[in-house]
Amino acid sequence: MAVKRSMSSGSITINDIAKMLGISKSTVSRALSEHSDVNAETRHKVLELARKLNYTPNALALNLKQQRTNTIGVLIPETVNRFFAKAIGGIQRVANLAGYNVMICQSDESFVTERSNLRSLLTAHVDGVLVSVSAETDRTDHFQVLLDKNIPIVFFDRISEELNTSRVYTDNYEIAFEGTEHLISQGCQRIAIVAGPQNLYNSRNRLKGYMDALRKHNLPVKENYIVQSHFRAGSVEDYTRDLINVSQRPDAIFAINDFAAIEMMHVIKKNGLRIPQDIAILGFNNETICRFVEPALTSIDMSAYDMGSEAAALLLDQIKGNREPQKKLIKSRLVIRESTHLKG
Amino acid sequence: MAVKRSMSSGSITINDIAKMLGISKSTVSRALSEHSDVNAETRHKVLELARKLNYTPNALALNLKQQRTNTIGVLIPETVNRFFAKAIGGIQRVANLAGYNVMICQSDESFVTERSNLRSLLTAHVDGVLVSVSAETDRTDHFQVLLDKNIPIVFFDRISEELNTSRVYTDNYEIAFEGTEHLISQGCQRIAIVAGPQNLYNSRNRLKGYMDALRKHNLPVKENYIVQSHFRAGSVEDYTRDLINVSQRPDAIFAINDFAAIEMMHVIKKNGLRIPQDIAILGFNNETICRFVEPALTSIDMSAYDMGSEAAALLLDQIKGNREPQKKLIKSRLVIRESTHLKG
Repeated sequence: MAVKRSMSSGSITINDIAKMLGISKSTVSRALSEHSDVNAETRHKVLELARKLNYTPNALALNLKQQRTNTIGVLIPETVNRFFAKAIGGIQRVANLAGYNVMICQSDESFVTERSNLRSLLTAHVDGVLVSVSAETDRTDHFQVLLDKNIPIVFFDRISEELNTSRVYTDNYEIAFEGTEHLISQGCQRIAIVAGPQNLYNSRNRLKGYMDALRKHNLPVKENYIVQSHFRAGSVEDYTRDLINVSQRPDAIFAINDFAAIEMMHVIKKNGLRIPQDIAILGFNNETICRFVEPALTSIDMSAYDMGSEAAALLLDQIKGNREPQKKLIKSRLVIRESTHLKG
Repeated sequence: MAVKRSMSSGSITINDIAKMLGISKSTVSRALSEHSDVNAETRHKVLELARKLNYTPNALALNLKQQRTNTIGVLIPETVNRFFAKAIGGIQRVANLAGYNVMICQSDESFVTERSNLRSLLTAHVDGVLVSVSAETDRTDHFQVLLDKNIPIVFFDRISEELNTSRVYTDNYEIAFEGTEHLISQGCQRIAIVAGPQNLYNSRNRLKGYMDALRKHNLPVKENYIVQSHFRAGSVEDYTRDLINVSQRPDAIFAINDFAAIEMMHVIKKNGLRIPQDIAILGFNNETICRFVEPALTSIDMSAYDMGSEAAALLLDQIKGNREPQKKLIKSRLVIRESTHLKG
């Protein structure tokens, strides 16, 4: 590897650092690549000076030589989805502490975009990828391409069931069951739900948890209490109006997320109904804003930040060579506030 | 460039495509690189077949050959900041339509992280970078490294004043002036503001717009009506309590963003004060949720999506070779709702 820039062009080379410290070029090069055969003090000196002089390695040459970039890729559906924005916070924290950079691609819930994002991350030589699949994704061959190249993948939140990779997941079935039972415990008997795309493992599990809780308490599962949503705003007003006009009006609605729940509350109040007395509302994600709306919104905390940081930790572990797939459950938590508070 | 994978390993090569179409390998290769010397029909056939067969180029070899990845990098402060999450939506839309992928890095408002993110994007061979600088950034040498390598940069929203690059910016001074005049027109005379970090051009301009509007209307600029914030949540409750306990209590507060404004409204109401009668509240960003809180929140729409899409369009233009720096203003818009509505 020849680093071709010289002092005259304003850029610092390995040669410059070697001269200044009076050590060999090869030692500098090995120190910068964090080879363990360079003693700690020398490595420290080299890294310190490199930092001070704002040394940047010749990226392409570096790629060719070590095929390591100290960068991890993150492939998520959308950053406007605050669950993922918060998860990125956790990912970035763990990655940065370990000296890794993070590059994020978003699929916009499109399979085609997800696939071409993976190609970009591959081209960028990321050392590993964290993935939460798009709502459209129902196949795994594009992930298999990376695994075949020995690039580790850790799925988080929206996992691929078929691939035997490390994963960080949450207990969607159990928490939907618990949330529904909470509504029942408050006296609600006609509980509606806004369910996500059913090709998603999480959405299926949430719906199943809701239905099983109703059955356990001998409440009917009614088709017109189940709304199919695709996480998009815009339709909230429509389906809320539909729900409150169903012949036997629901006395509770389990929303798809907090922002939808807050819009729902607005529509319900505009229609002269009270929350929770006429309709109790249960959100999802436990956004900070749940505390500031009226009534304060009961929600489910999915520990997005923790899911992100755990997923990043598992990925770094894989990058370091521990290739045994690990599965980690991050439990969700029901946070009860006024919007479902009917009984002391 | 030798693409080394063969049909037997399950991957499609340029050779395979050439054989199937009965044309030369070099024609296929040129068509895939979108060389203009391949006729449109042939190129279309090659691209169509490549897509059908799920052909992926040997990324490293491709990098070496054309130094083009059809990927743009985006460097922003934070994805939990919804302005940037929305801007990413606009960026991604324009980029994807033009056949480009998008890789996003976030600085977490740290200069050091911003710099190492830029290195990662450089290593990833992005064709260009969109940047909104961190709150800490007060130098430009890390950007200059990219410009020296002929990699175009377009700044958006939080721009670098020193570098003569393309930029998409908004009228922070004018809109802060207009927002403050609106509060004055409603009869407010003791107007407080929560200002951002003053090393940011936008934050300085907003504060200046606020002060100039007060001066124009002969209202005093008082130091204890100006709160310095760093976009972080957590402190909102503290500074709101401080503000309502100032000896001459403000009758209006110009918030740093809508989420802070909504938390502020919560604190103010908890303290037995009415909005807008006792204190009018003006937000920033015009989040969807402004319409659903009580009272509905007056805010400023910065057209985040449009800023993102305009910035992406300028960057693609630069990548295609038009290196003349362009400056584009996206106007903000005051959206008046109940939280500032004192006079008909």
